[in-house]
Amino acid sequence: MERLDRVRAAVAAGGLDAVLLTPGPDLRYVTGYDAHLLERLTCLVIPAAGDPALIVPRLELPAAQAAIKQDLEMVPWEETDDPFALVAGRLGAAATVGLADRMWALFTLRFRDVLPGARQVLASTVLRDLRMRKTPAEVAALREAGAAIDRVHAQVPGWLKPGISERAVARQIAEAILAEGHASVDFTIVGSGPNGASPHHEVSDRVLEHGDAVVVDIGGTMPSGYCSDCTRTYALGEPPAEFGAYFEVLLAAQEAACQSVRPGVTCESVDAAAREPIAAAGYGDQFIHRTGHGIGLETHEDPYIVSGNDQVLEPGMAFSVEPGIYPGPHGARIEDIVVCTADGMERLNNAPRELVVV
Amino acid sequence: MERLDRVRAAVAAGGLDAVLLTPGPDLRYVTGYDAHLLERLTCLVIPAAGDPALIVPRLELPAAQAAIKQDLEMVPWEETDDPFALVAGRLGAAATVGLADRMWALFTLRFRDVLPGARQVLASTVLRDLRMRKTPAEVAALREAGAAIDRVHAQVPGWLKPGISERAVARQIAEAILAEGHASVDFTIVGSGPNGASPHHEVSDRVLEHGDAVVVDIGGTMPSGYCSDCTRTYALGEPPAEFGAYFEVLLAAQEAACQSVRPGVTCESVDAAAREPIAAAGYGDQFIHRTGHGIGLETHEDPYIVSGNDQVLEPGMAFSVEPGIYPGPHGARIEDIVVCTADGMERLNNAPRELVVV
Repeated sequence: MERLDRVRAAVAAGGLDAVLLTPGPDLRYVTGYDAHLLERLTCLVIPAAGDPALIVPRLELPAAQAAIKQDLEMVPWEETDDPFALVAGRLGAAATVGLADRMWALFTLRFRDVLPGARQVLASTVLRDLRMRKTPAEVAALREAGAAIDRVHAQVPGWLKPGISERAVARQIAEAILAEGHASVDFTIVGSGPNGASPHHEVSDRVLEHGDAVVVDIGGTMPSGYCSDCTRTYALGEPPAEFGAYFEVLLAAQEAACQSVRPGVTCESVDAAAREPIAAAGYGDQFIHRTGHGIGLETHEDPYIVSGNDQVLEPGMAFSVEPGIYPGPHGARIEDIVVCTADGMERLNNAPRELVVV
Repeated sequence: MERLDRVRAAVAAGGLDAVLLTPGPDLRYVTGYDAHLLERLTCLVIPAAGDPALIVPRLELPAAQAAIKQDLEMVPWEETDDPFALVAGRLGAAATVGLADRMWALFTLRFRDVLPGARQVLASTVLRDLRMRKTPAEVAALREAGAAIDRVHAQVPGWLKPGISERAVARQIAEAILAEGHASVDFTIVGSGPNGASPHHEVSDRVLEHGDAVVVDIGGTMPSGYCSDCTRTYALGEPPAEFGAYFEVLLAAQEAACQSVRPGVTCESVDAAAREPIAAAGYGDQFIHRTGHGIGLETHEDPYIVSGNDQVLEPGMAFSVEPGIYPGPHGARIEDIVVCTADGMERLNNAPRELVVV
């Protein structure tokens, strides 16, 4: 069954009258169309009953026709038309409509006004279960993304030298992310020395020094739309003795969490598998974030590997396993994307995880 | 007065109880903070009465503190906290809240649920008037962006050769956009031959041929956050005679529209000034889009230069003037960013507008 048909069936089964998808990962998932997100409304209307249609600015019609291979009605609108009225006219007296999770308030509030009788819910109430369970083709796309970012990490040790700034390293990484096959660069975190102790530090003008540990967390989006995300920690010469001690704890914790992945276990149990050895070694207070996030057409999506999430893993679910320890004045994180298989898991990143001393 | 104070005054004057700004251009406008837009809620709460505060994931706190220089309360939340309840707790019985225009439905619907008594409106109802009137510092930032993209256009003729693909040209343009000082590439439209007749065609594997007209519409975002956007049309050798005829019409129309800009005239009158000479020459049906869009921290923002928009221009308003004629099997567009001054206008793009025959 085509993906659009599966979504339509899910809309009906979920008790919604329609979902409305503006440009973003939901629209791309359903149609393959990587549409511009601009103030002019592009919206895929998928009713539970009746035919779906793409409401599209006249200007974007050729691009939509080129991108969408399947049979789908397209309704172009002119610069002075009201596209929201067009959508409302197709839906009639809908009671519940699902909105793309990333829909702008600019559109959400207009839809509220033109469909005053409809309760708005998130489209993820029906799309989440579909998007979370990757097909073999989607896993292959993620595997390709993983291999591409592994090839970038293989080059990182060559760029880490005392005297170079984090920003200069990040620039070389960005070029390599594109050169290794990504369509865009999503993030290039280079956290050296004390900056490695701030998990979401991006990059600064700090110059690398002998003895620094350097956290390198990088990713991009492939032409397929699927994302990469991989973290490795490097050291410039021998790091402080204390660092070496907790890095070994981290390495074991990341391994334990990956090995805990199989169908039937919960997301929070994978989080716990990473957290327990770190806590046992006395670093529990320094592991200050969840263990991971799902990945696919978005870098962060369901399922989240976090305490309190009792979502049960199934084959095809793909997510990061990325514990970190941040005692300061340095820190470390190790991250792989893993996918749950029929009887365990497959790692989609395979660059060496051990500390690479440059 | 600080920008945050001006916004707070506008919130009160607009009859709102608060505005809620998630990461995006509104938040950057008010605080300078170019925050990550992710599933973890970052939200600036600006109440009409009382002190503003930034609700921020603990992980992002160091980045927020580094980016925001002014005095602002920061309320970090932990991975298992409910940040929406935190926001609701600060607002009490708000009757009307303004949401950032680009806020994701993921957040909009959660705020609806935790603030059931509050009517949601767009934050632009109060921010639009502030953001639309650029300060001298903002105009200077746009001028810098314009000069940077002009330097890219100066290099384009050197890349246009029979036998090269649109995609290969776009790749060189993307590199030059970064090399000339932008922080990111926003779009690289290269529409050659028949593709030039589709205004939002991006790029393809079509190979340039002798006699092609090539529409090159490119832009990026500067480190300041302000955007560039400039279109020029080039020809590879002598274009068809018919092309030359309507290109002259287009050039005169773009000039007429720019010259019509001054305080007190309406946006739709600028649109009409571009449209009239094109219609008089018989190409009215081939000018199939509005004349322009405002520009600032977003490539497309208010004011829109379109029929039906009676917004009156004031000094500091900045927007594109970009008429096009698309009869097929070729087309042309000329675009400058202009800013309304005390007694007329200033063009922020100054690359030659005449047809450059390569």
